[in-house]
Amino acid sequence: MATAAIIGTAGYVGQETLDRLLAHPGLETVALGSDSLAGRPAGALDPRLNGSLPPFVGKAEAAASGADVLFLCLDHAEALAFDPPADAVVVDLSGAHRLADAAQAEAWYGAAPGARSYGLPELFPAEGRLIANPGCYATAALLALGPLAGAIDGAVIDAKSGMTGAGKSLKATSHAGFVLENFSPYAVGGHRHAPEIAQQLGFPVCFVPHLLPVRRGLLATCYVTTDADVRSLLEAAYAASPLVRVLASGVTPELARVQGTDTAEIGVFEDGATGTAIVICALDNLGKGAAGQAVQNANLALGLDETSGLRLAGVAV
Amino acid sequence: MATAAIIGTAGYVGQETLDRLLAHPGLETVALGSDSLAGRPAGALDPRLNGSLPPFVGKAEAAASGADVLFLCLDHAEALAFDPPADAVVVDLSGAHRLADAAQAEAWYGAAPGARSYGLPELFPAEGRLIANPGCYATAALLALGPLAGAIDGAVIDAKSGMTGAGKSLKATSHAGFVLENFSPYAVGGHRHAPEIAQQLGFPVCFVPHLLPVRRGLLATCYVTTDADVRSLLEAAYAASPLVRVLASGVTPELARVQGTDTAEIGVFEDGATGTAIVICALDNLGKGAAGQAVQNANLALGLDETSGLRLAGVAV
Amino acid sequence: MATAAIIGTAGYVGQETLDRLLAHPGLETVALGSDSLAGRPAGALDPRLNGSLPPFVGKAEAAASGADVLFLCLDHAEALAFDPPADAVVVDLSGAHRLADAAQAEAWYGAAPGARSYGLPELFPAEGRLIANPGCYATAALLALGPLAGAIDGAVIDAKSGMTGAGKSLKATSHAGFVLENFSPYAVGGHRHAPEIAQQLGFPVCFVPHLLPVRRGLLATCYVTTDADVRSLLEAAYAASPLVRVLASGVTPELARVQGTDTAEIGVFEDGATGTAIVICALDNLGKGAAGQAVQNANLALGLDETSGLRLAGVAV
Amino acid sequence: MATAAIIGTAGYVGQETLDRLLAHPGLETVALGSDSLAGRPAGALDPRLNGSLPPFVGKAEAAASGADVLFLCLDHAEALAFDPPADAVVVDLSGAHRLADAAQAEAWYGAAPGARSYGLPELFPAEGRLIANPGCYATAALLALGPLAGAIDGAVIDAKSGMTGAGKSLKATSHAGFVLENFSPYAVGGHRHAPEIAQQLGFPVCFVPHLLPVRRGLLATCYVTTDADVRSLLEAAYAASPLVRVLASGVTPELARVQGTDTAEIGVFEDGATGTAIVICALDNLGKGAAGQAVQNANLALGLDETSGLRLAGVAV
Repeated sequence: MATAAIIGTAGYVGQETLDRLLAHPGLETVALGSDSLAGRPAGALDPRLNGSLPPFVGKAEAAASGADVLFLCLDHAEALAFDPPADAVVVDLSGAHRLADAAQAEAWYGAAPGARSYGLPELFPAEGRLIANPGCYATAALLALGPLAGAIDGAVIDAKSGMTGAGKSLKATSHAGFVLENFSPYAVGGHRHAPEIAQQLGFPVCFVPHLLPVRRGLLATCYVTTDADVRSLLEAAYAASPLVRVLASGVTPELARVQGTDTAEIGVFEDGATGTAIVICALDNLGKGAAGQAVQNANLALGLDETSGLRLAGVAV
Repeated sequence: MATAAIIGTAGYVGQETLDRLLAHPGLETVALGSDSLAGRPAGALDPRLNGSLPPFVGKAEAAASGADVLFLCLDHAEALAFDPPADAVVVDLSGAHRLADAAQAEAWYGAAPGARSYGLPELFPAEGRLIANPGCYATAALLALGPLAGAIDGAVIDAKSGMTGAGKSLKATSHAGFVLENFSPYAVGGHRHAPEIAQQLGFPVCFVPHLLPVRRGLLATCYVTTDADVRSLLEAAYAASPLVRVLASGVTPELARVQGTDTAEIGVFEDGATGTAIVICALDNLGKGAAGQAVQNANLALGLDETSGLRLAGVAV
Repeated sequence: MATAAIIGTAGYVGQETLDRLLAHPGLETVALGSDSLAGRPAGALDPRLNGSLPPFVGKAEAAASGADVLFLCLDHAEALAFDPPADAVVVDLSGAHRLADAAQAEAWYGAAPGARSYGLPELFPAEGRLIANPGCYATAALLALGPLAGAIDGAVIDAKSGMTGAGKSLKATSHAGFVLENFSPYAVGGHRHAPEIAQQLGFPVCFVPHLLPVRRGLLATCYVTTDADVRSLLEAAYAASPLVRVLASGVTPELARVQGTDTAEIGVFEDGATGTAIVICALDNLGKGAAGQAVQNANLALGLDETSGLRLAGVAV
Repeated sequence: MATAAIIGTAGYVGQETLDRLLAHPGLETVALGSDSLAGRPAGALDPRLNGSLPPFVGKAEAAASGADVLFLCLDHAEALAFDPPADAVVVDLSGAHRLADAAQAEAWYGAAPGARSYGLPELFPAEGRLIANPGCYATAALLALGPLAGAIDGAVIDAKSGMTGAGKSLKATSHAGFVLENFSPYAVGGHRHAPEIAQQLGFPVCFVPHLLPVRRGLLATCYVTTDADVRSLLEAAYAASPLVRVLASGVTPELARVQGTDTAEIGVFEDGATGTAIVICALDNLGKGAAGQAVQNANLALGLDETSGLRLAGVAV
């Protein structure tokens, strides 16, 4: 059985990655890296975790564990400083290495362009063993717009995400007093997922994210002008995909059906007044938007079944 | 003191209108019309209402009460069938008479075009005593875009509203099991506020509403392409307005600051990647988006102070 | 492989039962009964359901499907009228047959006392093939208090449940306008789960339920006076249980760790001021409180692994 | 007109106090003290605040402003260190001086017993000009139980509060990822409002608080054994109160009717199975539970109308 290590387990993305690994029949978790929890048992993170997992170790020790795949659940500054071991598959869940253009990488992440391969399996499969896992917003926007890229030259992307998208660190905008019963846009006019989306599509986009008062789930409403048959392009792109569902005509995506899963769903509409094509993608920001896609990328890189460990949709309320 | 009657008090919009009248120094509530509550004391609607209010009467009796102003809080079919008494100011909070074009009125409301005057005081003040109160989404979109109408010829309007916008009647999409911890678009490609917005702006718009898991509050994110100085146009339009705040550069609107009030706030941004102008308006769908604006319209028609009875913003959490 | 049918699939409890069956390695779903959906494909309930499931049939047809186990997801009046087929295991998720005392059954359900066996596996395992699945509140209260029953003679049970506990039918108290950002008790002084709890404990209890503004999850805070070693009794009772976790000293139960799972967790405390023992149980009202326990009961009756198809806790955010 | 200063304006309690003062016809706000905002205009706290307010000053400067009443919106350690100026009315909203017993004050606040008078106007009106404003939980429990104190000798108080009760400071338990769609008890067996309640009732109580996923509102469900006519005692106690409503038989309190107000409502029930009396009080933790009561106390100390500046209940949705 292949082995896995998580570098940075105590944040939302690390926890969710661990959750997939717990259900993975082909990957054994051999190291849980967390500097804040090093030396403590797995149950110190969550009382649901029992003695079958190894105790936490420091991040450096986890990186040196010799695991076949390393999941980097770090902020982008830490991820930039990370030196990947030879031979291991590395899935970097930060934004550090997503932008290939030097100026863009410098502008948005203070980084040199990465030597990692962008990996959105349905549209842009990664090459090699060093993989940049896409951003949550970028995943939703690209799933909606990627198959149309040859037929459009711009898009308005109005996106809304649950609060776990902002991570577990304490800040005024993740305080429940700001989030509950509230709704607001942020980073209007300049969010770092915009250049990531543009890089993959080949043209700039107008992208505005908003913060939803829900724990998890992300929905991107995309507006494009095109003469193409939008529905046909999307249905063709995902006909064989186990994780992306193009909904029947008239059915609208909603968060409830993707929360807690690693699937995405896409609705396709045309505006009656203006003819604008409206493509709407819903996914779980921590699932297909982060940890689920990371495990999917790892599965592909290791030659395992693409959906091993992933949460396919059931029918829960 | 002028007198007021509410025709249809038991729904959200009726309750909120009553709430403003309770605080109104220049309007005495002389009739509370509700067919379901007729004959019962005011406290039957809510234990907070005490003996100082008259008991409920049927809607027809309330309409014949001789009040100086009638607030019609009815669905549009009932409002279409309503025959306004001579002399009274009538503020119709339904959509029945908002569309002046015969074909549009027929298509969206099964109605002949109304003989009522559209009344959005800051931009399109009503004329005469028969007033069509704007829709909640239309109010937000028009406050954002109205001052720009001469400088644009289209817009994408991505709007999000709290669930009270859908009213108090029981339906699957207002069941808490659908709303809580969920988010979804609806009426994509064809919502009846789209032609209302288009009528006032003079060109069609692409409008998509979404349902937020909050009780109240509405935010419209509007995308336009223009060379005009958007901020200057908006600041000039609302410089003297007691109810509309144009926020300083970099400040984003949020629901929390407008919920429970009759004010609106507007943020102005430019997209760094595409130059698109982004104008965002937040208001309370039941306040400036319904009952507050109705009382504002009534105040103006009756020659009272424009903001009497309204809830201006304090600083509550 | 054994076969299963659901009688009443379109409600919350039916959907959740189906969700467990979809993941069950030892039970094949051969009939989905729903009078409202009869004749339509499984995807008519939810776009996540695909062609591998049979189309819906009427409830009577599902009952006559010859399945090895029938899950009755009906209201109690329908469940009372249901005539179980010979040989099949029947798990009744309604309250129809929970009360064994004739007067109580008549008072609370208008029913004759049932010939079904109450089945709460950890404490009161069912006998035979006709099983009354416990109520959600009763499950939480009994898990907290059952192991103490010999050492106490009364209890105050203050319980709080997410809104799915009230079902999918449309009523004023399940409208999102009542539920969102609200909290209230209901059925104060007389709820039908009180006699169910009393029946199993052997003495009357004071039970008050409250409605939480969350989709799912239930927490019961139980107050008892006793000289017994409460923690020891609880830890002994659940030492071998795969589904009930007694938390370490000082750790408080919370909904987040049980939502979407079929597990329960129990916290044990002593009040510093009065010496009162405080036992707190959290579970998912649709999981261990309904569908999860129903499948657990079916597994035991059919001789399958107790937790097949159930959702054990991972570590998701 | 009398003058007021707020010492500590930037937290929830300070903001809410300011909100009442903005609407107060008899109190002029002459100093807004905040060390973090000193030197900045009022609008720096919230864009709704305009130029009519003075700019922020440091807390010490606000305390020395010579205002007739000082509202201390500080944590208890800061409040303990505060030296009240001669002559001014001081309303301390912290817990620093609520406990009169030396051992209790030391145990819970590390404080010597205060020389301030506990002020819950309906039951325990303050004496003199130095006033300890009650805790939010204590206010609810005392409003429910105070009128019964002579007829009972103990109580179980199961309380639930919205998250603003925990203040604006950043901590793991006020992060939206902990609060949203979650529910949990805290400080089980030992919360500092328990001795405050006991002090005023004359006997110890078993008190357990829980955290609700709502912004504001608090509900305490109180269980007592007594032969007294509980309803009569409560109705007599509040017959003349403008701020406390005893609900009619069968009506349950709910947060929605008290949120954003300075009123409380009380429901009275008897348990059918055990005869336990159940008294339930709902209020807004920031209103009657904090800032509203503070302004009420100040009004009484200054000889102003008791409810000036307060938010009485309307009928809003």
